[in-house]
This record gives sequence, C-alpha cells and structure tokens, in this order.
Amino acid sequence: MVQTPNKQLTHLKNIPNGYPVVGEHIDVKESTIDLEAPLEEGAILLKIHIISADPFMRSPMKGNDSGSFFPPYLIGQPVYGVTVSSVVKSNNAKFNKDDLVVGITNIEEYTVIGPSNPFFNWLEIRNETKTSGLPLSYAVSVLGMPGQTAYHGLLQVGKPKEGETLYVSAASGAVGQLVGQIGKQRGLKVVGSAGSDEKVAYLKEIGFDEAFNYKKTSSITNTLKELCPNGIDIYFDNVGGEHLEAAIENANRFARFPLCGMVSTYNTKEAVGIRNLMSLMPKHITLEGFGVSDYFQFNDQFTEEVTGWLKEGKIQYRETIAGSIDEAAQAVVDIFHGKNFGKQSIYVSDPSF
Amino acid sequence: MVQTPNKQLTHLKNIPNGYPVVGEHIDVKESTIDLEAPLEEGAILLKIHIISADPFMRSPMKGNDSGSFFPPYLIGQPVYGVTVSSVVKSNNAKFNKDDLVVGITNIEEYTVIGPSNPFFNWLEIRNETKTSGLPLSYAVSVLGMPGQTAYHGLLQVGKPKEGETLYVSAASGAVGQLVGQIGKQRGLKVVGSAGSDEKVAYLKEIGFDEAFNYKKTSSITNTLKELCPNGIDIYFDNVGGEHLEAAIENANRFARFPLCGMVSTYNTKEAVGIRNLMSLMPKHITLEGFGVSDYFQFNDQFTEEVTGWLKEGKIQYRETIAGSIDEAAQAVVDIFHGKNFGKQSIYVSDPSF
Repeated sequence: MVQTPNKQLTHLKNIPNGYPVVGEHIDVKESTIDLEAPLEEGAILLKIHIISADPFMRSPMKGNDSGSFFPPYLIGQPVYGVTVSSVVKSNNAKFNKDDLVVGITNIEEYTVIGPSNPFFNWLEIRNETKTSGLPLSYAVSVLGMPGQTAYHGLLQVGKPKEGETLYVSAASGAVGQLVGQIGKQRGLKVVGSAGSDEKVAYLKEIGFDEAFNYKKTSSITNTLKELCPNGIDIYFDNVGGEHLEAAIENANRFARFPLCGMVSTYNTKEAVGIRNLMSLMPKHITLEGFGVSDYFQFNDQFTEEVTGWLKEGKIQYRETIAGSIDEAAQAVVDIFHGKNFGKQSIYVSDPSF
Repeated sequence: MVQTPNKQLTHLKNIPNGYPVVGEHIDVKESTIDLEAPLEEGAILLKIHIISADPFMRSPMKGNDSGSFFPPYLIGQPVYGVTVSSVVKSNNAKFNKDDLVVGITNIEEYTVIGPSNPFFNWLEIRNETKTSGLPLSYAVSVLGMPGQTAYHGLLQVGKPKEGETLYVSAASGAVGQLVGQIGKQRGLKVVGSAGSDEKVAYLKEIGFDEAFNYKKTSSITNTLKELCPNGIDIYFDNVGGEHLEAAIENANRFARFPLCGMVSTYNTKEAVGIRNLMSLMPKHITLEGFGVSDYFQFNDQFTEEVTGWLKEGKIQYRETIAGSIDEAAQAVVDIFHGKNFGKQSIYVSDPSF
C-alpha cells in the first residue's frame, strides 16, 4: 500500500463568529491517499487541477444553519467546494479516465467521490474545455456557476429593456464584472461600484459607463443620484446593506432587484437592517432572491452566447489565481475581505492530457 | 349669495413626526359654501355621503415626500381622501345630477371638483351601487380599493396554489379580512394575526384556520412556526417590521410576499430595519411592492366574483362607521393605532335618491 501525499483544505475546530481566520477556522493540512486502493461501486478518483474560492463557502462554516442549502463543514474534515479535476480511475460507466469534471468535491489534491455523496449527481463532464482554447479556470468562473448567476440573474430576473439603467455592486467580482458587460451587450446604461481605485479603473476599461469606489464616497445614495440621473431600473445586488438601501432610494417605479449575494452580511453576527423597505410599495419594486439552479434550462443559451463573446473579444474576464494548494486557505478567507481582484481561484495541478 | 355650512377635515399647522394628533395635525373645521355659485367649465358639485379612512393618508401628511405617489396635504387646507358622494349640480356632460361617484375628493360635506384637480379623472360613476342591496360604504371598502388590493395582491402577486399556506398580518383590517377569505375560497390554509382577542375571534368566525393576537405572543417567529408547520408560501404584508422578519424566517423556498402596506413604520421617524433579507437568496423568496393600479385590468373579474360571494354569504366584511363628519379627524388618527375593527369609514349624509 503506497501512500501519496495529499494536502487537504480543512475546517478546524472553531466555528467562526465573524470573519474566518487561517489557522483557527480553516487551514491546509498534510494527509495521504492510497491511489491504488480499490474504488467502491460507482465511485471515481479525481485529480484536482483548479479550486474555486466562492462566497457561498461562508455558509457551511456556520455549523447547523437551517436557512442554508449547504450541509455544514465538519470539524477536522476536508471542506468541499467547486473544483475542476480529471478522472484518474473510474468504477462508474459514466466516467472515463481523463474526463474533465466540474462540480462540488472535497478540496484536496486527489479525491474519491461516489454516489453516496450528495453532490455526486451534480458533477458535469466538460471535455469541450480541453479544446476550447480558453483557460481551464473559466470552467468555474465566467463559463461556470458565477457566469450562469450573472447571465440568468440579469436576463431572467432583471428583465432588462434597452436604455434602462443597471447598477451592480461588487462589480469587479466573479459575478459583477460579467453582469455589467452583459448589460452593455443588451444596451443598458451600466453603473458599478467596487472597493479600490484599481478595480474602478478596470470597470471603466471593460465598458462600464460609470464606476465608483464605495470606500471613498460619504454617501452611496448621493453618488448613485449623481451617476444615475434617470434613476435605477435594475439593481443586481451582490452586497446587501448600505448598497441595497441606496439602490432602493434611487430606484424607479417597477424596478427589479435580482438578489444574488449579501457579502456585507456574511461575516457579521448582528446584521444591519434595511430600513427603507416601505419604499418598495409606492415604487412597486420587486426584490427576488434567486439561485442559478432556478434557470438551468437556459444554460445552453448561456454557454453559447458567453463563449462567443469571449472568443470574439467582446467581453473580458479578470481572475486572480493563487499558485498552489498551500495558498487555498488564505485565498478563501481573502474573498470575504474583498482582497481578490476578479474571480478568485487556486491552481493545484496541470491535467495530464 | 347664500352660504351653507360646510365642515371640512383640515390639515393643521404642524407636520407630524410620529403619530398625528387631533387638534394639532388634523381637525374638523367649520366653513361655508355657496351652493348656488356657478361652476367652472367641466366641474361638478358633490354632496359627500361616506368618507373612507385609509392608511395612505399618513403619506401626504409628511410634507414633501419624494418617495410618495401622493401630493402633500397643504397647511390650513382641507385634506383629500376617498369618498362616496352624489352629484348635486354638474357642468360636465359625463356627470348627471344624482350620479353616485366614488373617488378622491376633498373631505368636506360639499365639494367642488373640476378637471384641474389631479384626481378628477379617477372619479368613477358607480350607479349600480344604488340598487345592489349592499351598503353604500362597500363602494370604498370590500368593493372598492381595499377589496381590489386584497384580490389583485393575493391572486396576481401571491399566485396561490391550492393547499399552500398563507399568512396575513393586520388580518381583521380593511384589506386583510378579505385576503384571508379569498385564500379560503382558493383552497389555502390561512393564518392571520391581529391586535386584540376580539379581532382574533372574528378571524376564526370568518373561516381563518388559525389566528393569533400578536400583542400576546413573545415571538411572532415561534408562533408562526407552530401555526404553519408546513412553512409559509405566501405572506401578505400589511405591517412590515417584526411580522416581515418572522415571515421570512418561516418562509418556504419560492415563497411570494405581496407587500401592501407597512403600517408599523408609517409613524416612526427611525424605521426598524429588516435584518434577515439574506435569507431571500437561499430560499428564493420574492418581495413585490404593488399597487392596485398595476392590476386594474382585473377589476371586472374582481367586482363580479366578490359581489357574488357577498350576496351568497360566502364571505363576510366587517366595518366600523363613525356617525358624523365631526368624528372624521379622530377616526383617521385611530387607524394608525389599530383602534378600528375592520374597515374604518365615516358617515356624513344620506343620498337623496
């Protein structure tokens, strides 16, 4: 029995109350795996190439959270997340050696997953990625769930009409940068906010009509009033809190607010309340919490249209990719502080094909 | 020139910060009118029979409120509101003497209204009311705007499916009592809350499956958990605040929340924030602010169906009708304290037909 080193991103002994801390709540631990061990019926052995660092990972860190869709991370066990991997060995007719696989797995260098895992049926074989000429990491970013979230949220929930005004918060992030660029493709006026001047410059570079650094404005409400003189028709909310209040203040009648994330509230024990919901009535505003899975029937349209835009250079996509699994814990923690620029992923290994 | 006494409900010198107070912010004042004076082109002279006391009247008391649809009440001038009246004299081909008219007019015993008034085009001739055998007051309650709000809000925004659970706050009020009864007609489980044991008893009497006195519960969230073991699919929000938070806590995935009013916030300077909006995303909840005017295309269906239910005794409707215009100021102020039982209106005079 030969043991191969197998580093794992692990949930440590404490459940974080506020921001998670590397070494206290999450860390990379040494482990080993026997790559020759027989696989149980239906299981596959995967070699992981890319790990996606996603805001949803804060949710299973909460222990039992009845509001959440995601089962809690278990103390001392590897955490799960979205990965790009390839099949090393298969005991399942659906998967062949070297298939490129995208889905939710344990985060480690090698991982075994089988039908008893609740996420097993979500695994997708994405072999077209091998020959698309686009980076492998796009499978978990612009052409993965963040991309689908942007596309379905803006088009299906936001229901944009040409000439309307769209505001996006966390606009340089994994989802936001695509929301804004899809908005431009659909003929909207697009306004975005981000947390640094560098990010704001990037937003202008990729075609946002207006962009501002929310950390440098004393009132998001007043800034939006200036930048959106015709009011806001769609607010794509990645942040919640003050941005949501300010967007309600500046919303037009019949505005649509796709709610995608409220990263401002994920790490705070006492959530800040939204105080102006009474304006939803006279303005007839709709707030709609959604998830990509509500609109999977539009995935083929999404893949075709966004792949086309990328290949034609009509849209750009910014990623930050950490260089090894050793940096995975820090990379995950950093996204809650907005330290990443664009989509944050972690490189683990190259595929063998 | 003969002057006839003409009492007016008047907005006094101060704009209320909190609850309006009779004698300080609103009162009934003596005035006179010359009923023989010639009417300008297009104008009509109305004799008012019924005044409707509505929560929206808090909004024009705020002075200039950019979020509001309603122009502010003017200091020292009569306030406007929804009334039932009949035409005394007409200089407009559309209106004949003795036509029964429902709409927004100044609140006084006699009033002149013409095309320069922004609400003039909203006036409806409702002569069928003369012979329906139903009370005249129904024209501003169960068969008027509160009824339309209940009907369109539940059916068009709430999109009920048989067997689902509906929660209604302010459930014995002008809108709520009808929402719950329409819910029963559509095969829902209906749970309501109100602010007194007497009101709760009424809700059970008119067919609510469950009802509770929110003033006697230490946690609305826990009470709803008990009374809605299958979770809430539709929350018809008349109140906002703690009820809205509790309904979000107990909501099922894909729940719909028609937002109709947030009376808990109308009279408070600092609104209480809603702290659990982040649950809208994992639960895919939709909050939709609406107004009756969004769904006027369904008014004929509404009138036919609700009139039918009333005549067949399938639904009941509770009103409190103050006995004279002298009581109008108190009656309006009382609705903000929930002192009314059912729809609050004020009797002013009998029609002459």
